[in-house]
Parts: sequence; structure tokens; C-alpha cells
Amino acid sequence: MSTSDGDAACLLDVTALQAALARFAAERDWERFHSPKNLAMALAAEVGELLELFQWQTEAASSELARTPGSARAVRDELADVLLYLVRLADVLGVDLDEACRTKIAANARKYPVERARGRADKYDAI
Amino acid sequence: MSTSDGDAACLLDVTALQAALARFAAERDWERFHSPKNLAMALAAEVGELLELFQWQTEAASSELARTPGSARAVRDELADVLLYLVRLADVLGVDLDEACRTKIAANARKYPVERARGRADKYDAI
Amino acid sequence: MSTSDGDAACLLDVTALQAALARFAAERDWERFHSPKNLAMALAAEVGELLELFQWQTEAASSELARTPGSARAVRDELADVLLYLVRLADVLGVDLDEACRTKIAANARKYPVERARGRADKYDAI
Amino acid sequence: MSTSDGDAACLLDVTALQAALARFAAERDWERFHSPKNLAMALAAEVGELLELFQWQTEAASSELARTPGSARAVRDELADVLLYLVRLADVLGVDLDEACRTKIAANARKYPVERARGRADKYDAI
Repeated sequence: MSTSDGDAACLLDVTALQAALARFAAERDWERFHSPKNLAMALAAEVGELLELFQWQTEAASSELARTPGSARAVRDELADVLLYLVRLADVLGVDLDEACRTKIAANARKYPVERARGRADKYDAI
Repeated sequence: MSTSDGDAACLLDVTALQAALARFAAERDWERFHSPKNLAMALAAEVGELLELFQWQTEAASSELARTPGSARAVRDELADVLLYLVRLADVLGVDLDEACRTKIAANARKYPVERARGRADKYDAI
Repeated sequence: MSTSDGDAACLLDVTALQAALARFAAERDWERFHSPKNLAMALAAEVGELLELFQWQTEAASSELARTPGSARAVRDELADVLLYLVRLADVLGVDLDEACRTKIAANARKYPVERARGRADKYDAI
Repeated sequence: MSTSDGDAACLLDVTALQAALARFAAERDWERFHSPKNLAMALAAEVGELLELFQWQTEAASSELARTPGSARAVRDELADVLLYLVRLADVLGVDLDEACRTKIAANARKYPVERARGRADKYDAI
């Protein structure tokens, strides 16, 4: 049994985060805005803010962005914003993210066997 | 102490997932492609595939998409793809997602006090 | 001959805009930042800002956004930002947008024949 | 008078394209799906497909993508898809893209004076 086969019992646990976000929305009466369609758009908008941090950086410089004082906070904040909306979206859709990730990793392992995918961006492109 | 204040000890745990993804990339010699810049683009591309599922749906219909046989698998797969790239991106950047989320939720709680934000999309828009 | 068949001589003309943007970049010595990869990211980031304007709006309200004093300027600005990066990207890639659009519209006309596509979101979804 | 000042009479003309797209939608009874909210999502989804073409490419390789036989058609098609949705979105919103672009370029010229913005990614980042 191996995690890269997607057989692992549990790859992630976002239960507490989902509960915190559900309570946050309920307390503010924001549930009415939180349709999956709207949350998917909000998620995409946050990813846009994340891209903005990387867009003019070289690949090498992009590796240092979370360790550079001037940008570290912004990188952490944008990653968090994306994750918050993603976890909230999965909750209102009723999707178990742990199960979804295990299924997808197992599918990826079948799609990209180690011996054939090794070092090939072109194969990977086909994702 | 309250999770919505961001004081909770732990809101999420993606340790096992990060390890699985790191191993998946290492086994295939894909680490060279996994610069934060590239992963941010891949994340955004996956969000585009998620949006495609929702784009012509009404808000009401979007709520049923993960429970409808014809679309449930696609919704779960796209949510997983987004999460996989996000968690991998955080790993190569060296960002602790749990800490980042707690910081961001605490900031949101200060920015949107319950009594002033209640039911107001306009306030929320300002995120 | 019909524009919806993609046979029209010219569907759009962005020549003057491309020249203006090329000069704008050259004057500021920004050409070195304008790789297609970077411009594609900048384009996506701007689309994120556009989505932010629509994310909590109902579909009906979204139709009024460019006519509402409080949001009209923002909508126009974000549409322009997206177009500026798209036109600049096509220029550095050497792509003729008019030809590309005519080819794509002709392909869409073959893919979605009027009699079969009429009023069907599910067909359309398949784009 | 100078185009980079945004004073030019006309920077772009998408009239024929807008008419072609309006007719395409009308013929298929798709106007009911074309709310600005939906079209903004479709635009973002197409940008995701564009990003997918560039995500694992180096900046240098990205410059050749529209000239490489294996990828040229895909690049042209995705650029066209983005433009088609953008032009359609502007149409249903009632936004004059030429005017919007001239206004935005004039604002950018004020925001990034040549002498101060020259060669500085950090200034540019602030867009």
C-alpha cells in the first residue's frame, strides 16, 4: 500500500477548517451568496491575485518569493485565500476532498507510469 | 478561544498529501518543472476547468452539480486537481498552509465584524 | 458569404492598438518582461479582477453592472486590461487575431449546427 | 497627439466581430445563457486553456509556441476563444472597447511615466 497509489487511509484533513468557514458564513448571513457558482468565481479571482505575484518573476525568482520579506506575507495570504474558497466550495457541494484527492492521485499514477513519464514535460502537458 | 478568530491549534492537515505529491514528482523527475511560477499557472489552468463546469449553470443548478450522476465525477476531479496543485505549490514555496489560513481567517474576522457585515454583499465584495 | 461562416474579409482590426502597446512597452524598456508566458499570466490575473466584479452578483444584476454608476468605470477598466494584455500577447506571439477568430468561428459553426444546437446548454457546454 | 497618450481617434474596431457573435448566439437561441456573469466565467475558463499551453514552458520556449507546428494551431485557437468571449461580453454589457482601451492606456501613461518606469519590474508589478 502506498500513498502514491491513492490507497492511503487519509491524505488530508480539512474538517476543522470547513467548520470554521461554515460558522464564519452563518454568523454573517453570507450563506445566501455562497452558491457553488459564486464560490467558484471567487476562487478564480483569488487565483488571479496569486498569479499577479508571480507574473513578472523569473522561475528562479519565483522560488524565493515566500522567503523574501517584501512578498512573503502576500504569498501566504493569497495561498490561504485560494484554499479557504476551495474548502468552502467543496463543503457546499458536499464533496469529500480527501476521497477526491485519493481518487485523482490513483488515476494520475495510472496515467503517468514512472518509467514512461520520467522527466518528460510533453507527457505531463497532456494532463 | 474560537476557530473563527483563527486561534485554533490546527484547522487543517495536509502533511500526508504534501509527502505523496513530493514523492510522485520525485519518482517522475518532474521537480525541475515544479517552479512556483509554473505551478501557479497549472493551478490557474485547473481552476479554469472547474469554472467550465459551472459557467452555463444557474446558481440553483450549481448546487446540485456534485450530486448529479453526469457531472459528479468531473466536479470531484476538478476540485482535487486544484487542491493538488495548491498543496504542491505551498510545499515548494515553503508555506505552512495551516498557519496561513489561521492568519487569514483572523484578519477576515477583524475586517468583517459580524454586526456590520451581516447579509451585506457590498461589504463582502470588498474582500 | 457570411460572417458566421468565418468567410468575412475582416472581423476585427487591432493594428493601431498593437502598435500603441508595442511603443508603450519599448519606451519603458518593458519588452524583456513581455514573454508570452508572463503575458499569459498577466492576462489571467486581469481576468481574475474582472471576475471579482461579478462573483457575488446574480445573473440579472450582472447585466446592469456596466450601466451602474458605482461599477461602470471598474467594468470598463477591467475589460480594457484584459484586452490590452490579449492583444499584446498575440503581437509577441506573432498571431493574427483576425485570422484566428475567423478560423475559430468557422469551426464553431461546424461544431454547433443551428438546428442541433438551438437552445441547448448541454451541447454548448461541450465547447 | 499620440496613441500612447490614448488620444487617438480609434485603436481598434471589433464591430464586425460583435455582429457575427450576436448573430451566432441569436441563431442558436443562446442569448439566454449569455449573461455577463456567465460570459465572464466562460472567458476565464478559456484563459485557463491558454495557460495550460504555457505552464511547463520556459519563458524562452514560450516565444516559439505559436511558430511550432505541434502547438501553433492550439495557441491561435485559444487566443481566439478568449477574444470571442471578451468581445461578446463587452457587447452584452454595452461597453465600447475602443473607448475603454483609450481611457486605460491614457491612465497607464500617467501612472507609469517613461522616465520613472523604465526597465523596472517592481513599478510595473504595481499595475
